[in-house]
Amino acid sequence: MTTQIDINSASKAKIDALRSVIDARLRVMAAGSEFAPRLNAAIAHSLLAPGKRFRPILCVLIAREFSANTDAALDAGCAAEMVHTASLILDDLPCMDDAKLRRGLPTTHLEFDESTAILAAVALLNRAYGIIAKITDLDASSKVDLTELMSRAVGSYGLIAGQIADLDNDDMDTDESHVEQVNALKTGALFDYTILAAAKISKLTAAQTEHAAEFSRQIGLAFQLLDDLKDRILSEAQAGKTIDRDIGKATLVALGGEAAAKQKLSNYMKAADDALIAMGVNEASPLRNAIAYQFKLPSHA
Amino acid sequence: MTTQIDINSASKAKIDALRSVIDARLRVMAAGSEFAPRLNAAIAHSLLAPGKRFRPILCVLIAREFSANTDAALDAGCAAEMVHTASLILDDLPCMDDAKLRRGLPTTHLEFDESTAILAAVALLNRAYGIIAKITDLDASSKVDLTELMSRAVGSYGLIAGQIADLDNDDMDTDESHVEQVNALKTGALFDYTILAAAKISKLTAAQTEHAAEFSRQIGLAFQLLDDLKDRILSEAQAGKTIDRDIGKATLVALGGEAAAKQKLSNYMKAADDALIAMGVNEASPLRNAIAYQFKLPSHA
Repeated sequence: MTTQIDINSASKAKIDALRSVIDARLRVMAAGSEFAPRLNAAIAHSLLAPGKRFRPILCVLIAREFSANTDAALDAGCAAEMVHTASLILDDLPCMDDAKLRRGLPTTHLEFDESTAILAAVALLNRAYGIIAKITDLDASSKVDLTELMSRAVGSYGLIAGQIADLDNDDMDTDESHVEQVNALKTGALFDYTILAAAKISKLTAAQTEHAAEFSRQIGLAFQLLDDLKDRILSEAQAGKTIDRDIGKATLVALGGEAAAKQKLSNYMKAADDALIAMGVNEASPLRNAIAYQFKLPSHA
Repeated sequence: MTTQIDINSASKAKIDALRSVIDARLRVMAAGSEFAPRLNAAIAHSLLAPGKRFRPILCVLIAREFSANTDAALDAGCAAEMVHTASLILDDLPCMDDAKLRRGLPTTHLEFDESTAILAAVALLNRAYGIIAKITDLDASSKVDLTELMSRAVGSYGLIAGQIADLDNDDMDTDESHVEQVNALKTGALFDYTILAAAKISKLTAAQTEHAAEFSRQIGLAFQLLDDLKDRILSEAQAGKTIDRDIGKATLVALGGEAAAKQKLSNYMKAADDALIAMGVNEASPLRNAIAYQFKLPSHA
């Protein structure tokens, strides 16, 4: 039996402080060459828009938990944030979800134009690899491992496969296990990179890394389900992005209803927490606070 | 004074044989996971369409010249071919050049759809990094160097910056040095990756690597100029792609006329050849044949 997680103002302040560090690092990473001012502006618009920065927070807090190099984890986590941002730009394109609002701002193709948005997304993915290659105080062999983890998370076993499957997803006759599989690709894969990169930087044992992979699986499923629930529950202003894009899509919320989805979310969260404890994370860890904070649904929901 | 290069049928046969090896390797690399059949099909359509494979040919022949690991050079060169293909898919999109024909086939967004084409391009870039990370018989530190070279070649110092500048390029008041700079970004940067990766795999000295960088600079400029000349001279069927996209664009051909452009091409080729010899490449090298063959203009041109 694990202890109850209490998100008080002190733990919230710590998460906010870490988010500021992440935002500062992302500002440095957003800068590009003098040859491409419009590209730089589009990258800054998308990457520096207010975000929860959950992936870098996870990466840094795991490394901190195991007294590993948090600077390396910060950069590895920021690489995930860049790839996440790239995926949002692409998802929002007219030929995909055709969304107008993201992170409370006009989507990148509306603020600039379609070609600039596409090139900014490609540049963000590309720069993420450059950042991994340049992480200080990380041996070359680990950098190669992180590169491989990222390539798998993005490619035909990950994000891109998930995005293609999601675009095709208008069949309400599908079942929950298929939806879970798509969610694992679309959202879970980048958590896999993030958490396994943190495990690598933290030099976790093989057994701990297996628990880390299970933690990632559960937190990824929880995260996508939370997103689907918010899409159903929140107003556009509250979500800060175009919502109702899921109408007609087979999400777990659409398939089983809101109450069942909330129960399922709670099950994922419990399984994730169990895996975290099995990894060797302290019961009083800020990592558990950060997760509880991230997954708190708005009170009226 | 270097010897004359004679492209006879024997040297042409050798280049064709190497191209077959490259095509076979690309077929292996084009395969993706079972989760994304349409993505796999779009990658195969674009990557396996008949291409000259000049970048992998260069990479392998440089490594062979210096008795280095040609398998490593093959994979490093194929990574460049994947990124090159990704850039072609993106260039051809409706929001960019809106082209219908590429490598003698319908462009990827016409054969599939726009979202699939964009995701295939992103997947190709992403997979290129995965391939670099998995090159056999290459030390981790060199893999990290290749990753950095690729990230620079693609990003705001390379391909993407060049593509943005090219989209903005409708000002005929510009001068040749500006056009050369855009060409260096748009086309030269990926040659820099290819040739410097080959130099790294071949363990060239710092002095040789400087000559390799100069060779790359000249061959990149020559390549873009050849492309602009062909766009002006060849029919669509001969070029195998939508042409006349350059009308109204400030290319070196448009700025100085055809005869001056041909003279300029010849100057670039001479400078490239001088750099190659300075690198330590044998005068009778197949590398010089391959370059002469690649840059042969159709006889009626």
